[in-house]
Formats: sequence, structure tokens, C-alpha cells
Amino acid sequence: MAAGDIGPEELDALIIPGGYAPDHMRRHETMVNLVKGAAQQGKIVAAICHAGWMLASADVIRGEKVTGFFAIKDDLVNAGGRYVDEEVVVDGNIITSRKPDDLPAFCRAVIDALA
Amino acid sequence: MAAGDIGPEELDALIIPGGYAPDHMRRHETMVNLVKGAAQQGKIVAAICHAGWMLASADVIRGEKVTGFFAIKDDLVNAGGRYVDEEVVVDGNIITSRKPDDLPAFCRAVIDALA
Repeated sequence: MAAGDIGPEELDALIIPGGYAPDHMRRHETMVNLVKGAAQQGKIVAAICHAGWMLASADVIRGEKVTGFFAIKDDLVNAGGRYVDEEVVVDGNIITSRKPDDLPAFCRAVIDALA
Repeated sequence: MAAGDIGPEELDALIIPGGYAPDHMRRHETMVNLVKGAAQQGKIVAAICHAGWMLASADVIRGEKVTGFFAIKDDLVNAGGRYVDEEVVVDGNIITSRKPDDLPAFCRAVIDALA
């Protein structure tokens, strides 16, 4: 199923992986719009490591407290995010973590948000 | 030689490669400061493809006309750059190109700037 085949209203949560996948995902407007739509509809949008690039491209972190892999800190701050160095950050429906070591805290936060 | 072993005053030009190297280079303050210093001292600073991430982290493109690989367009715009889709852009001492296909124009612009 492609990103354009679903709408954010069909989702409970949208979890964006890290690595360099987000550098590729952000090249596709349908994927960026899915993230933007999910965030705007109050769905849980979770991003770890480099996934913050998708939040930046979807323009959904202006004024929001976020974290992410330290290499993309400048991109998150320039996108309006209030960057903090914590293992997981929950601000409204946006959940972010920094790196693979943060996965336990990240997953717990996503599960808690879905509960 | 490490980035901290040289100062921007020793350079004629600083050419930043693309790929994911800039995602690693920007993690090192000494490398970011070398780019910032070179730009501030009026040295030629050239960046192609994903290299614009280094210009964003060095905070040297606010108000500048720039280009870069389309995947990082949002990061360049959020860093204050005026993004255009051209094979090479020369704005003051900053020279930028989008992708490997632009290398001939990019290299000519760097050589012209050094002449």
C-alpha cells in the first residue's frame, strides 16, 4: 500500500523510523502530507532518530518541544522546534526520541498514548 | 590533518561534498566552525547535493540565494536560504549546486571564483 492509498483518518498512530529513510520519504509529497494530516488531526505522530526530518518537512513542530538525533538538531530548531536532549519527549500528539538506545522509552510512550 | 588543525585564513576555498558525509561532518563543532569561519572571512565556500546541511549548521545562508539537493530544500529554507532550482547558484562567496549532474557547472563556478 502506498502513502497515497490511505488517509490520516484511517490511522491511530503514525510511527516514523530513523536512519536515512526519512531523507527519502520527505522527497514524496504524499508521504509528507500524510504526516501533516495525521498531526493536524491529532493522531499520534512518533518519530525517532533522523525521523524528525519528516516532522520538519511536514511543518508540524513549530513551538513544539521535540528531540531527535543530535545531527539533525539544527534542522529541528530551524523548523521551529524547541529541542531538548531527553530520551523521549511527548508534546501534545507528537512523540520524539533521539536514538536506538531510547527505543524502550519511545515504545512505552507510544503504547501509553494509544492506551 | 583534522579540521581543528587548520584555520579558515589558510584556505582559498572550502568545497563540501555531498552524499551523507555532511550528516556526519555537522556532528563535529570544529568542522562546522571551519565552514562558518571561512564564510565569514569571505573565502569561497562551495556545497553540492546534501552539503547544504553544513551551510545550515554553520548558519551562513540567512538571506542568501542557494540551491541544493531537493530532499534538503526544507532545511535550507528553514535555515534562511532563498532556495532556487538552478544547476549552480553563486551568491557572494557561497556557491551551491543540486546534484552530481550539476558538477560541470559547479566546478566551473568554483574555478571562476578562484581566478
